[in-house]
Amino acid sequence: MPKLEQGLVQVYTGNGKGKTSAAFGLALRAIGRGLKVYVVQFIKGGFDYGELYMVDKLPNLKLKAFGRGEFVTEKPPRKKDVELAQEALALAEQVVKSGEYNIVILDEINVALNLKLINLNEVLELIKEKPKHVELILTGRYAPTEIIEAADLVTEMKEVKHPFNKGYQARKGIEY
Amino acid sequence: MPKLEQGLVQVYTGNGKGKTSAAFGLALRAIGRGLKVYVVQFIKGGFDYGELYMVDKLPNLKLKAFGRGEFVTEKPPRKKDVELAQEALALAEQVVKSGEYNIVILDEINVALNLKLINLNEVLELIKEKPKHVELILTGRYAPTEIIEAADLVTEMKEVKHPFNKGYQARKGIEY
Repeated sequence: MPKLEQGLVQVYTGNGKGKTSAAFGLALRAIGRGLKVYVVQFIKGGFDYGELYMVDKLPNLKLKAFGRGEFVTEKPPRKKDVELAQEALALAEQVVKSGEYNIVILDEINVALNLKLINLNEVLELIKEKPKHVELILTGRYAPTEIIEAADLVTEMKEVKHPFNKGYQARKGIEY
Repeated sequence: MPKLEQGLVQVYTGNGKGKTSAAFGLALRAIGRGLKVYVVQFIKGGFDYGELYMVDKLPNLKLKAFGRGEFVTEKPPRKKDVELAQEALALAEQVVKSGEYNIVILDEINVALNLKLINLNEVLELIKEKPKHVELILTGRYAPTEIIEAADLVTEMKEVKHPFNKGYQARKGIEY
């Protein structure tokens, strides 16, 4: 496996579109170079996303999604949501520490942190202890300040214009 | 071919990372649903990008890149750069109007507009005349105000933090 000389910690956050898509686009580029990518999805398990139909067809890309197929909105969160997010984090820790993947994408982990499904210090610890050659990508709205401080490269996807007033609904193949 | 009920015009702009990646991630999701995607790349032809190694392996995804393998920085631009960008736009017009692709991605077209390699009114015309079921995605820094006004959905990728001071260089498999 080719190795990155220096893996960084990237964050994609903000209220705009394109955070998860940017992570998948990055994954596509990486596997085009023969790199190995693991995507751990927080909260998203059980939802039907178009990209999932491609994952099995792509070499060197693995994905595991955790979630019960419903949006997590309750505060305090349901016990089941906490359990699933903690399973996701445990897998993320295992995958990152194994050093067997060049890029580990923790999709929507920022949302899981914001909802307090997982412990912030545990994620900060993971960032600190990651092998040097592993690139870590954290996506999702509401990235906590501490995560932004710990990251090397942070991009905010900012919503400039959204067609709410045109009766906009999530469209199969575009939004999911 | 499944059709979108309402194709929108999306813009990804700003100085942050993830604009082209978001477009490719979106393409991946779309082809996962059996939609057809055409990517026309302005300026980028002749460069070696990791994602290009995946394009031929993906169903329903076509890509053509125009450019001479060097960054376009001169003002006024070289005649060759103008020619290539205009070829790219002519192809884009043909592909969009054919209605045979659900999604047409015009990668870095905003930069081509900013460098005045192509005519703004021609792009605005293309946006206005696109078939209803075609989704148009325009990427690149410096999206002109008129493009933002004409678009339905605009996202700014904003650089919040960048590791310049760590001797950061573009890395194979991550940045290209």
